[in-house]
Parts: sequence; C-alpha cells; structure tokens
Amino acid sequence: MMKLGDAPVRLALLGCGVVGSQVARLVLEQAGDLQARVGRPLELVGIGVRQVRERPGIDPSLFTTDLAGLVERDDVDVVVELIGGIHPAQELVLAAIQSGKSVVTANKALLAEHGPEIYHAARLSDVDVFYEAAVAGAIPIIRPLRESLVGDAVTAVKGIVNGTTNYILDQMHTHGVSFASALAEAQELGYAEADPTADVEGHDAAAKAAILASLAFHTRVRLSDVACEGITAVTTDDIAAAESMRCVIKLLANCSVSPDGTLAVGVAPTMVPVEHPLASIHGAYNAVFVESVNAGRLMFMGPGAGGSPTASAVLGDVVTAARNRVRGVAGPGESAYTSPGITDPALVVSAYYLAMTVRDEPGVLARVAEAMARRGMSIATVRQEQTDGEDATARLGITTHRAQDGDVRAVVAELLEGGDVQGEVRVLRVEGA
Amino acid sequence: MMKLGDAPVRLALLGCGVVGSQVARLVLEQAGDLQARVGRPLELVGIGVRQVRERPGIDPSLFTTDLAGLVERDDVDVVVELIGGIHPAQELVLAAIQSGKSVVTANKALLAEHGPEIYHAARLSDVDVFYEAAVAGAIPIIRPLRESLVGDAVTAVKGIVNGTTNYILDQMHTHGVSFASALAEAQELGYAEADPTADVEGHDAAAKAAILASLAFHTRVRLSDVACEGITAVTTDDIAAAESMRCVIKLLANCSVSPDGTLAVGVAPTMVPVEHPLASIHGAYNAVFVESVNAGRLMFMGPGAGGSPTASAVLGDVVTAARNRVRGVAGPGESAYTSPGITDPALVVSAYYLAMTVRDEPGVLARVAEAMARRGMSIATVRQEQTDGEDATARLGITTHRAQDGDVRAVVAELLEGGDVQGEVRVLRVEGA
Repeated sequence: MMKLGDAPVRLALLGCGVVGSQVARLVLEQAGDLQARVGRPLELVGIGVRQVRERPGIDPSLFTTDLAGLVERDDVDVVVELIGGIHPAQELVLAAIQSGKSVVTANKALLAEHGPEIYHAARLSDVDVFYEAAVAGAIPIIRPLRESLVGDAVTAVKGIVNGTTNYILDQMHTHGVSFASALAEAQELGYAEADPTADVEGHDAAAKAAILASLAFHTRVRLSDVACEGITAVTTDDIAAAESMRCVIKLLANCSVSPDGTLAVGVAPTMVPVEHPLASIHGAYNAVFVESVNAGRLMFMGPGAGGSPTASAVLGDVVTAARNRVRGVAGPGESAYTSPGITDPALVVSAYYLAMTVRDEPGVLARVAEAMARRGMSIATVRQEQTDGEDATARLGITTHRAQDGDVRAVVAELLEGGDVQGEVRVLRVEGA
Repeated sequence: MMKLGDAPVRLALLGCGVVGSQVARLVLEQAGDLQARVGRPLELVGIGVRQVRERPGIDPSLFTTDLAGLVERDDVDVVVELIGGIHPAQELVLAAIQSGKSVVTANKALLAEHGPEIYHAARLSDVDVFYEAAVAGAIPIIRPLRESLVGDAVTAVKGIVNGTTNYILDQMHTHGVSFASALAEAQELGYAEADPTADVEGHDAAAKAAILASLAFHTRVRLSDVACEGITAVTTDDIAAAESMRCVIKLLANCSVSPDGTLAVGVAPTMVPVEHPLASIHGAYNAVFVESVNAGRLMFMGPGAGGSPTASAVLGDVVTAARNRVRGVAGPGESAYTSPGITDPALVVSAYYLAMTVRDEPGVLARVAEAMARRGMSIATVRQEQTDGEDATARLGITTHRAQDGDVRAVVAELLEGGDVQGEVRVLRVEGA
C-alpha cells in the first residue's frame, strides 16, 4: 500500500454515465489543483464500460469492457465505482478491495444491502471505502457523521434525501396539481426517470436511510430493516389538509432511537410543520437534519443529485483516498459496535394525521374518539367539515399526540369495521415542530 | 508516534472553563462509547488551569498549574487547548506539537493570526492539529471544507458565525428595539459577555472568516487580511429600511473570489434578502453557506456556541485524532498552495444600500444620481420619503447594482461635500438573493 517517490495515484473508473463522465472530465480539467492537494498527480488509467462509445472530452483509449480485469490491474490504486445496482458492482468492489485498491462509490443500493461485508473486507485489506456520493449528492453528510459527530451521541437523523420526490411534492404544494401530473412534469424536466419506481416508491430514500442510520448509531442497518412507503398515494386532499394544518408533506427518511432503545428507521410521506427547517427545502434539493445530545440540532442542505454535485462528492472522496494512499495509510473504517435492534413496527412512535369520510349523524365523532381513547391515543386537533353532495357525510381530520403505530392501525381497522366510516382511512405521520 | 498494544490514548486538557469542564465530563461519561469508537480507552491524565479550584464531577487530582510541563509529559498523546487567546496558548500548542502530541483546539484567535506556523510545525512533527470547534461551534464545517470539498473549487463562503451578534440583530428585527437595548438583554440571558467587544465589533467573526477562507481557497488568510465592521452602528432605521426591502440585517462573514482572482474576506452588517437561506437563521444559531463550482450551494446550520455544542466539536476531533494515534498516522494537514492575494479594499465588489437625509428641493435627486453615474454605479432601487418636522428634508434610500467599494466611498465623500446631504450617509452591503 506504500506509495514511493513521485508516482502518480492511479484511478480506475467503473461506469461512464452522467456522473462518471463528469468525474473523468474533472480529473483532467482540475489536474493541477488535484495534484497540489494530493501531493502527487492523479492519473485516470482506465474506464470500464458495458459498451464502448465515444464520449466528448474523454480519451477513447481509456475505455475497456473488461471491468474485472481493470479492478485487479497492478497499476490501479483507487477504483471509483459508478455503475450502480448490486451486480456486478458487488463483485467488482470486493475484487478491487481484495486486490488492495481503495474504493470510492456512489452505490447506495449496494451499501444498503451489503455494506457491512464490504467494510469488513476493506478493513482486512487495510484500504478505504468512501461513499459520500451515495447519500444526499453534494452535501457532506457521511464524513461529518463518521468523523465529526463521532464524539457525540446522535439521537435522530431525518432527511429529505430524494430530489425526485421532493420536487414532485413541492410542485403539488405550489401548484395544486395531482401526483400523476407533477410526476409527468418532473420526467419532462429530467427530475424523474422514465421508470421512476425506485424514487417514488421510496426505495432510493430507504437505501440512504439504512446507510445514515448505520453511521449515526454505530451499527448495521440494512435495507430490509427500513419501513418504506413512497408518495404514489399522496393526493391533492392530503396536500390541502397539510396546508390547513400549516404543514407541508415531505418524503422523510426518519432514523430515530425509540423509547425502548431500539432503532426505528423508515421512509414515509410525512406532514412537516412550516417552522421546521426541513419544510423550507424546495425543488430537487436535499437536506439532512441531525439531532445529537451535545451538538443539538444540525442541518445540512444542498443539491441532492445531478452530474456535477455528485461528481463533487466523488472527487472529495477520491482526493481523500489518494492522500491516504500517498501516505501509505487507510482511514479507521466504519464503527459498528452496537446492536440496538430494530423497533417492532407496531411499537414505532409518532404523531399521526388520520382523515376519513364519516356518516354525518349523531354519535359518530364520539365513537371515533372513544375508539382512539381505548387505545391510549390522545387527540391533538380535530377538524370536521361537511362534504358537498347528497349523502349526509362529513370529512373528519384528526391529529394525534405521539402514539404507537400498532395502536393507530388497530383503531383504523376498528373504524373500518364499525360502519361509521365510508371508504378508506388516510394515515400520515406528523413530524414535531 | 506508534501506539502499541492496548495502551490507552491519553489526553491533556488545557483550560477548564465552560467548554473544558464539559469536555472533561463527557470523556468520563461516554468512556465506553469513546473506547469502542477509538479502539482503545481514552484517558484524561491532566487538566492545566490557571487556578486550581473545585469543579463538580471532575477528579481534583487531575488539576495542575504547570501547563508547560503538562504538554511535554511522556504520558500525553493528545493535547486539547481550550484556554483561548494568543498567549500562552501559542507557546503551549507549539511545545505540544514539538513534543510529538496531536492538538485539538477551539482557538480561533490563535489560528487566525498564527495558523500557518502551527500547521507547518504539525506537519514537521507528523501530528494532527484539528480545530472544528474554532468556527461555528457544533456545526461540522472545517472537516467538510478540508476533506469533502477538496475535489471541488469553492468560489464563496458566507456565514453567520457569531451567535451573540445574530441574537442581537434578530431581537432588533423581531422586537424593534435598539442595539443597546438588545445587547443588554443578550448579556442578561448569557448570549453576550460582560465585555462584548470581540463579538459586537466583529473581531470574533473576522478570525473565523480568516480560518474559513484559508481552508476554502487553499491559501493563508490571516486576521489582518480581513476587513472588519461590527454591528454597533446598526440603527432601528437600518432595520426598518431592511424590512421595507424584504431583507434582514445579518453580520455576515463574506469570503469570495473577486473578479481579478484575488480574495475578498470581510465581516460587515449586510442586508440579506428574506429568500436567502441565511436570512432564516434565528437567535444564537450559526450557518455557513458554501458555493462551489460542482457542488453548487451548500448550507450548514446549527448551534454556534455554548458548552455542549462546542464540546461536541472538540470530542469529534479528539476521537479522530485518537484513532489516528492508534494507527500511528496523522492526517494530511492543511493545503495552502495558492497565493491569490487579498483584494484591494477599494476594488471589493458588492451591491450596496445608501441612506441619507437630503434637502427637499428640485435637483437634489438628479445630482445624487449623476454623482453615482459618474462613478459607473448603477441604481437598482430608490425610495424617497418626506421626513416629519419643520425642515424641508427627505429621507433617501438607494440600492445599487454591484459596484466597487472605492467608488461607493468616493460618491459618499462627494455627496457629503456637495451640500445636498445633511448628516452622514449610511452605507450597508447588500447580499444577492
């Protein structure tokens, strides 16, 4: 691992899409500054792609379709993995590590499912694995959690970590349009993919939540530990209800310590009070809010995606990894010494918003309130309004104080069986101010 | 520098005030977690103080008044300097470094004036000097600038980095009170010192600006390079004018690259548009706004001062330094390979707000506008209002587009000589949206 003399630090890039091509270009354009900061030249020696085709500004002789060979070459020091997905990224990353290369990656899906094995392999090989670009784009959050807050006790991490869904929800709030309409516009403007499933179903945010929770709580949280609900069911009624409550709906990745010491990690559309810093995050921006015992409340905000912002995070990791190679060292690796366990989903605590259409008759509100009281659920606010139309129905919106998720689901089931409620009961989490 | 076996990493603390005593307590209270994160026990072996007196929760046998002896003891690995000020902190920090100890400090004044010599000594001794706690309290900003944005090109750093002055200005805006009144209240509540000079005159913010600029632009900026204006001259008229312009007045530390490539680093009360993220920073909170070529606009926000937040930053550095000691390494040190120079104060560019009382006669506004036009200063907005009273005067408020500071001062001098203006011309910088 020792670097001798003035030999350059040599990079292999895997993937040359939007982010990869920007990284390649920046390594060339900023060569002088990067060399000054690393102490040696940074040299791009190969770019692994599935299919060789011309990319403007990039030397075509760098391309290869032999990715497995590339990561094991003797003349490679740092591998930058920007392919995404589990396979073949997992195999290539592990091969790189076992060949003594440091790895920089943006691959949230891979780390959320296989992070612990990868970090362990890196420790055995005494190489770095850095992944700032995997969460919240350009915003430095991984390094601060791992190295700045490491003397503190983090109690919660809450974030808007998916730009696509934040853009869509922001459009719904600002223009009163439907989810489908806002999604179509987002796709037109390039804020959403042709297949937007990973974003709008919350899977992308859930992978990031697993990574953030692992770091924040010094443990191993995997994607399968993360409760996940996307935004596809958010309606214009929900948006209007939020506004009447002086809230905005955000797809929030929420990682907290539950009363019993276990970890509740989940992604869900959440009503956020307008005074909360997270409420003012617009468009495709991301923000991560961190609460710690000593530091108090910190917030990190910035562009969450895009070629240049993600390339910035990748290059920060590349320079840091390169500096370590030059000095023949690796960082301390990931700290995962606790095993608090994951909160039983029924025991996850939050405030909730429930909306339902009820028969407009005497006794209905009393029965709803009684059903809630029997489960120990305390009502914070109630709003009942007459609905238009011939049926004598009313629209009832209730917010609770903090309650257990299991109790909320049980109350909803009871109300649906009871006959007072027509159609579904809409349930949304509500964040404190 | 190599750590052998399971030997603890031993800390010496210099200073046991609000922050020092909190650090000492946390090292004890969090011993298990800190050991797990470092890989070895962290042991506090001595606390240097000017005067030994009892402090609750701290073993009195740790105290010593022989600080010079403490920093050179063989059984010390990391020195935590929390005395503040230049002397004797400078001598003690250099002695610690030369004895092979890593240093963690919160001392902005020392680093702003003598940082380069200290970093150089640290590099020669192959030890770490970390100083997250010197700027913006608990907010991780030093490490992100040094290690996360190191692959990018930072073009500006703008921050609210002094909680005392932000609290005072926030009170002036919220309650319409005078500076003197808000200061008195801040002192009562502990947000301002008995002698508030360093805060309200901007010196504290200026030291932090020097440190931020050095990191952001990979160069050496010292306190003497920083233009500094505090908030003692901010009036209720200024506050009202800001509000009419949909701005709030903030004491902004502004570090930017000027058109000629030199660095403009200054602290001044500045009108910030309400849409700007920095406008929504309230009370004693701090926030740092970073603009980079690739990352775009990032913001970091949190508690800027206080025993616990500052202790959080100190402990993050202590753990990182300790982890390095355990592995027998030090970090890469400070990167300062550029020499862009400091912008000639007359050439610093900004938008400005000028307020003046003028004789209410024909031609006055025309002459004011002509004086500005002759200097190439373009007017953005104008507001003129009659003043109450017998004199026929009017209050004129003008905002300019971006102009050079020298031109603004020249126009002001001309107007004062010209006879149309009564009293002073108030000049405030205006930040873009």
